[in-house]
Amino acid sequence: MNSSSVSQHRYPHQNEPAWSKSEKAIARKAFDAALERELQEVIREAKQKAGQIKEPEDLWDLEHYLTQRRGEIDRKYDYRYSQLDLVFGRLLREKWIDEEDLRGLGEDKLRAIRSYAKFFAGTDPA
Amino acid sequence: MNSSSVSQHRYPHQNEPAWSKSEKAIARKAFDAALERELQEVIREAKQKAGQIKEPEDLWDLEHYLTQRRGEIDRKYDYRYSQLDLVFGRLLREKWIDEEDLRGLGEDKLRAIRSYAKFFAGTDPA
Repeated sequence: MNSSSVSQHRYPHQNEPAWSKSEKAIARKAFDAALERELQEVIREAKQKAGQIKEPEDLWDLEHYLTQRRGEIDRKYDYRYSQLDLVFGRLLREKWIDEEDLRGLGEDKLRAIRSYAKFFAGTDPA
Repeated sequence: MNSSSVSQHRYPHQNEPAWSKSEKAIARKAFDAALERELQEVIREAKQKAGQIKEPEDLWDLEHYLTQRRGEIDRKYDYRYSQLDLVFGRLLREKWIDEEDLRGLGEDKLRAIRSYAKFFAGTDPA
């Protein structure tokens, strides 16, 4: 089953193409890998920040950093099929995944994902 | 000026003896020293916890620890003269100060502080 064969199956309440079983497996793997990479990066940064703590203020900076990163990650990693194009677009833009991780997704999805990646490139802080 | 000489001066809205100038200086010094000691201990523990992070869960444990300690310290270190006996009683109980830090406070205050220290001893988790 490829994506075009299921493109006429719509979720009742949404307008995006359904995800085939093999696409779901690819998506799950890419999603989990990205999350793991990003969490490892937070661990690395947190250890570094902790190592540099000198003043009490640095402690609360670390707390703030962790709270912020947790919230950001919670919001970003939204595994709803209705959101996945956008999520992968962002992860692609932020280099937590590359196109290789997405190989096997239907062309319709890849197009949407690339388009979101471009959108996020435009919203990056200067 | 010793504490008994001012014991008839009351704050308009409260019932505790006023703090003489020299008592205030002693209190401020003891208070700041305790806070500094406790914060240094949090820094030490945070660095240790960060060093032991392996899983993402450990990250959020560290965040939770910092949030909790900050809130606890914020609530505990209440430098209102109406609260100082209680605050010092707790700090004495928790060994962030010792009687030496309080030397020079009036006997009325030391009595109240020791009494709070005993009270907090009774509330310690078993």
